[in-house]
Amino acid sequence: MTEPFSVQTQTYHPLADDAVGPYLAAIPPVAALLGNSPASWTVREVGDGNLNLVFIVEGPSGGVVLKQALPYMRLVGDSWPLPLERSYFESMALTEQARAAPGLVPQLLAVDRVGAAIVMEYLNPHIILRKALIRGRRLDFFADHMASFLALSLFKTSDLYLPSARKKALMREFCANVELCKITEDLVFTDPYRASPGNRWTSPQLDGAAAAIRADAPLKAEVQALKLKFLSSAEALIHGDLHTGSIMVTETDTRAIDPEFAFFGPMGFDVGALLANLLIATIAHPAHSEKPQPYQSWILDQAERVWDGFDRRFRALWDEAGAGDAFTAELFADAPGKASLRRAQDRRMAALFTDTLGFAGCKMIRRVLGLAHVEDLESIADPDVRAAAERKVLALARTLILRRYDMTSFADVRRAMAEVERHPA
Amino acid sequence: MTEPFSVQTQTYHPLADDAVGPYLAAIPPVAALLGNSPASWTVREVGDGNLNLVFIVEGPSGGVVLKQALPYMRLVGDSWPLPLERSYFESMALTEQARAAPGLVPQLLAVDRVGAAIVMEYLNPHIILRKALIRGRRLDFFADHMASFLALSLFKTSDLYLPSARKKALMREFCANVELCKITEDLVFTDPYRASPGNRWTSPQLDGAAAAIRADAPLKAEVQALKLKFLSSAEALIHGDLHTGSIMVTETDTRAIDPEFAFFGPMGFDVGALLANLLIATIAHPAHSEKPQPYQSWILDQAERVWDGFDRRFRALWDEAGAGDAFTAELFADAPGKASLRRAQDRRMAALFTDTLGFAGCKMIRRVLGLAHVEDLESIADPDVRAAAERKVLALARTLILRRYDMTSFADVRRAMAEVERHPA
Repeated sequence: MTEPFSVQTQTYHPLADDAVGPYLAAIPPVAALLGNSPASWTVREVGDGNLNLVFIVEGPSGGVVLKQALPYMRLVGDSWPLPLERSYFESMALTEQARAAPGLVPQLLAVDRVGAAIVMEYLNPHIILRKALIRGRRLDFFADHMASFLALSLFKTSDLYLPSARKKALMREFCANVELCKITEDLVFTDPYRASPGNRWTSPQLDGAAAAIRADAPLKAEVQALKLKFLSSAEALIHGDLHTGSIMVTETDTRAIDPEFAFFGPMGFDVGALLANLLIATIAHPAHSEKPQPYQSWILDQAERVWDGFDRRFRALWDEAGAGDAFTAELFADAPGKASLRRAQDRRMAALFTDTLGFAGCKMIRRVLGLAHVEDLESIADPDVRAAAERKVLALARTLILRRYDMTSFADVRRAMAEVERHPA
Repeated sequence: MTEPFSVQTQTYHPLADDAVGPYLAAIPPVAALLGNSPASWTVREVGDGNLNLVFIVEGPSGGVVLKQALPYMRLVGDSWPLPLERSYFESMALTEQARAAPGLVPQLLAVDRVGAAIVMEYLNPHIILRKALIRGRRLDFFADHMASFLALSLFKTSDLYLPSARKKALMREFCANVELCKITEDLVFTDPYRASPGNRWTSPQLDGAAAAIRADAPLKAEVQALKLKFLSSAEALIHGDLHTGSIMVTETDTRAIDPEFAFFGPMGFDVGALLANLLIATIAHPAHSEKPQPYQSWILDQAERVWDGFDRRFRALWDEAGAGDAFTAELFADAPGKASLRRAQDRRMAALFTDTLGFAGCKMIRRVLGLAHVEDLESIADPDVRAAAERKVLALARTLILRRYDMTSFADVRRAMAEVERHPA
């Protein structure tokens, strides 16, 4: 793994389009990758300007992406200050993820901590997984790739793999990523369950459903138990925002992007985020297609492949590379030890499945009732059709959260999905 | 709370006896507390010289303790390097514990980070709780005081009380306390379960028992699950070494001392450490007394009072001061909310009891088979009598670890204790 080039900007200022060429020209490995001189490079700003500046720069021999953090998020007409340091956390997360799961994140070429910018390889012809799913594209490999990404990135930053000193040193760095964690704490775990000015939903269709969730005391208690876990379980370096909009795909290549929410948290939050978004895509699909089958089943199959693949690979890593300070391998070397370790792994994976379903439910509810929605549902033009799908998402999410201790395999998720499709509540 | 005075030593060197007076004279609040001039002060070194220098300094108006870390631990004839920074972690932990649980830790008067020293109030006429228990002294208040210390220090450094930004900032500091955590990881969770040169036990009496534990695969798997929790559950700032030798008592006053192992870990580790040592004291007592009853029952009663008091106070704090980012109080304001919160608290306290028993079991086993033993057992001169008590400790510990998910109240611990007394395995 080559270390990314370190850019020594003196003071932060947002880059104008015409400053991008000279900026990149001063980074030798990037200039070499683009080829020839800056005059021959094309620069396109493709960020939505809400959160980050994102420039795609192409030269005669290659392309790069320059992503620079802006000090605020523009949203619902308002400005919300956001720390520039999130760019640095993204660079650290990309570095650790590349170490743990090579080839499954974009290559990091340069880091500019003061300038709050990173330069990465330009992923081309990749598209956002969410858009591919809305368009009904079959992608044979993304589920396996994401199962690998999850297993590798979570296992290899956990106490099952890292010596405790290394894990604590990494954790120390990411403990500073306070503000972005707080966004998740509020938007995922709290605001959808109370009257909050940022909340929105398909109204008036879901007014009753939103009120019912705000009044659902057993649900709120379970969501807060999951929030406590999010706040206090430092199991692994998690991506922290692993929805289908944070994954770029081709037919054969898959990359997890945008890990600025990364910190040491519960593994189930990442696995659950991806499952949540695949379950939303499954429920939303009939609104995007005249003939929803067999594609709708295909999406659900991918969710199962993600969990099963993750489960299998994680166990294999534990068996083959369990070098961390937890479950000291030496203690389980003989046959009875191996058998006991296997049972401990079964218990650990079962607990992780429970967490995964709980976090998935939280992520589904926030996409229907909270501040930030998803295109799978938002792009359904007819509000009655959209609300019908969203009601199913809420019902499934509620089941996942409240019944997660009784659900032991993906077959239980399928049953819950079938139930919701029959009786959307 | 007054901030401790900050001493600006330039380079570390261990303090000689005759350097102590001038050192303290340069700390105005300490000099004022001692009164008059250094010539009138008496200096006694009372540390065992293994780990720290500990000076008791008394002047005409008061006394202080000066504790300075040594860069090594002398043990079993060998020298084991230890970081001087542990003194700084102790000072930070004392500061946070004093904030959370005023009056239950020694007052910190001065901190010298480079000099690896702290100055504290001299606790007098306090004695070490372990010695009081060995001598059969009844202390009416320590159990309630320790229940309060545990509830306050754990609750008020958890996500139930602290805003997430404050908790993450604190956690960041304590993530650096790597070496001392590693000692616990090895000595408590690993070494007693493998052939390790530091291990020792009453031999030959316990040779078979030690071998049986090393071969006990189901037990090792559970201990490693607890170790994983120790490594990855950042629930609260825990003391990290809360045995009865870390508690100083009078009839009416109780203080937890020596928190140099402090870090953000699982709450059950502290509660379990104290219970473990009270259970050991209970089992050991008949060897120290011609008439073991009713004192032996009294010790066991104190263990129950610690748990019950902790449980009650922790819930009360949660109800009255639940201002943290977890379990956002606003969500549970109405009657159904309060009822659901109560059930969530029941589940949380039940899980905490389970953890407590598991960690207690680990702490008991290490005191019989590991490197560091306890005076309650070590001072039993007859090796057969000692081994008989130690066998009971091992049997009870094994039950606590393996049956902890089925044990729901202290009555179950009493039953396990009675079973061990009847059939010591």
